[in-house]
This record gives sequence, C-alpha cells and structure tokens, in this order.
Amino acid sequence: MEFFFDYVSPTSYIAHFLLPGLAERTGARVVYRPMFLGGVMRATGNQPPVAVPAKGAYMVRDMARCARRVGVSLHHNPHFPMNTRSLTRATLGLDSDPALQARFIDAAFRHCQGIENGIDPADERDLAAMCEAEGFDFDMILALANAPENREKLRANTEEAVARGAFGAPSFFVGDELFFGHDRLDHVEEALMA
Amino acid sequence: MEFFFDYVSPTSYIAHFLLPGLAERTGARVVYRPMFLGGVMRATGNQPPVAVPAKGAYMVRDMARCARRVGVSLHHNPHFPMNTRSLTRATLGLDSDPALQARFIDAAFRHCQGIENGIDPADERDLAAMCEAEGFDFDMILALANAPENREKLRANTEEAVARGAFGAPSFFVGDELFFGHDRLDHVEEALMA
Repeated sequence: MEFFFDYVSPTSYIAHFLLPGLAERTGARVVYRPMFLGGVMRATGNQPPVAVPAKGAYMVRDMARCARRVGVSLHHNPHFPMNTRSLTRATLGLDSDPALQARFIDAAFRHCQGIENGIDPADERDLAAMCEAEGFDFDMILALANAPENREKLRANTEEAVARGAFGAPSFFVGDELFFGHDRLDHVEEALMA
Repeated sequence: MEFFFDYVSPTSYIAHFLLPGLAERTGARVVYRPMFLGGVMRATGNQPPVAVPAKGAYMVRDMARCARRVGVSLHHNPHFPMNTRSLTRATLGLDSDPALQARFIDAAFRHCQGIENGIDPADERDLAAMCEAEGFDFDMILALANAPENREKLRANTEEAVARGAFGAPSFFVGDELFFGHDRLDHVEEALMA
C-alpha cells in the first residue's frame, strides 16, 4: 500500500497516525511517498478547501473532530500553508535507511501538525531546532534537502501521483486503485483484506 | 437534526438511505430541508467535484464503493446534473402532510439516484411517470412545483443553509453545528448522543 502525502496537509497527519494500526491489522507494508501537494493541486486544477471561505471554516472544526475521535493531537500550524520541501526532499534522501527515514517522517509530521506553534520548514532555524529536539544531524538533513537528486525524486513522486489519478492528499493506492482522504482508510483496509 | 439536501446529489441519497437507522438509534427526529444546491455552490464560490476532472473520475468510484458498503443501490443519472427544482418545490408544498411528504421524498430520491436511467425532473413526462409509478397525483404535484410560495420556501431554505455555513450537500445541523457529507453521519450520531 502506497501513501502519498505532504507534511503541509493536516489530514495526511491524521492518516499517518492511523497507518501503524492498519498495517498491523492487515499485514500490509506501507510505502511512504512524499509529494509536493501544491504541484498536485496546480496540475489537476484542484483548490485547497480554504479557497471557499465557508468550506475553510468548516474544515477547521471537522478536522478537530476527526483528530479528537481517533485520539491524535492536531494543532493548526501558524505558518500554514507551509513550504515543506526541505522536509519532503530530506525524507526522500533517507530512502537508503528505512528506520531513520521512518523516525524522520514521524518527527516532521509532529513538528508540522502535532505540536503547538508548529515549525516553518522553510526557515533553517526551525529545521535546526527540530533536528536538535529529535536527534537528527542538521547538516546532513540540510544537505539532503538541497541535493538535486532529492529535488528530482520529489518532482517524480508528484508527477507519478498525478499520472495515477491523485488530486490531493492524503492519497492511498492499493495496486492501481486510488483512495483519497484519511476518512477512506476503512475502504483501504477493506481493499487490503480482499 | 436537520438534513439539508438536493435530489441532484448522489451522496445526499446515500445519507437519506442511512437516516432511518440513525434516527432509530439516537431517537432524534430528522427534519428534511430541501434546498437548491446550485444556489449554495454559487453563493459560497464552491465548485462541484466534476469541475476537477481527476476528482470527478475518482468520485464515481468512491461513491460506488460507499453505496456498496452500506447496501444502497446507486445509479448514475444520465441527466446529471439534473434540474431538480420541480421535486424540491413539490416536497416543500407537502409540508402540511408529513406522511405523504416522507413518501414523496423517498420516491424522488429513488427515481433520481436509485434506479437505472433515472428521471429528468425538469421533464414533465418523467415527473408524470414517476407520479404514476409511485401513486402520486401528478396534477397536484405539478401545481405544488409551480406554486410561487414553494419557490419562495426553496429560496428561503437555500439562503438559510448558506447563512448557517453550508457549502454543499448533504449538510446536517445538530443545533448550530454543521456536518458535511454522508461520511460524517458518525459525527452527527455522536453529537446527537452527547
């Protein structure tokens, strides 16, 4: 099962929180596929919910309820919509070390969505503070975030997501079948058990 | 609990199918509030999912899965997006006879969303055929559909929905709290039990 996400997306964070349980129940392996959500929106002509004021206002309340129901701590990031490319690119640069990568993904999600006064990932001081708090080598993370090959990997993931039908985040694929939204993980689970 | 809907909306039909069970479990009374979804979209600047081709393609598969999971027969209406105002206005004209109104709502939903080759409610022949099949007096229904006071009631419901924060259908209110989408009926149920 593939999980296409961007740290800018609060509902991707809710999904991230729910995935270990789903993996345990289904025996499925979750492949984390960072993408650039802004690029997906632009390529598909999709707009974020906040583009419609009434929808944006509702989403705040809806996401808070969704988070409370599953027991995850979700906080509005004051920098929203954050430029998360340093984090998504660094994540892709950790492909060769799955355990470190998993720890980095969880830290990046928490610092963007799970703590009060979430970080601005485009601000190197915020990135450095996160690395220090979570025990990552900031210089290494920054080098991975700036490496052209990780920039290219992020672009490739984003283009692949669009080519396979994604229009937002979180997007899940079971084989070629797309499921959109943390609130479709029950459908994902059913597909994995079929 | 108030249910704002339009017969043009497939997910409103899924919600309609699920509401009797919810009412039984919670003891809540469901107040059916027909509205003009096109007016809600226009007033809020919202766009239907089909405005984004990738989202429209996904929605077809997603709605089929949602319908299958709850056991309701959902069929794409060849006239989509139908002009449903004859049905919503006639529904409002039946306010004084709740039992007849409930039967009409169910019939209108089924003929728009639940049968193969659903009707075009703007076509009087289709409306007449539905009335004949379901045992409604076509002349009375047509008169209600054309009555200025029902036109006015529909406009008032639509404006009230927008004023209270709705931006699409189905929309539910528990008191002043808005819930959007058939897939939030679990939140509605929780709110009703609180």
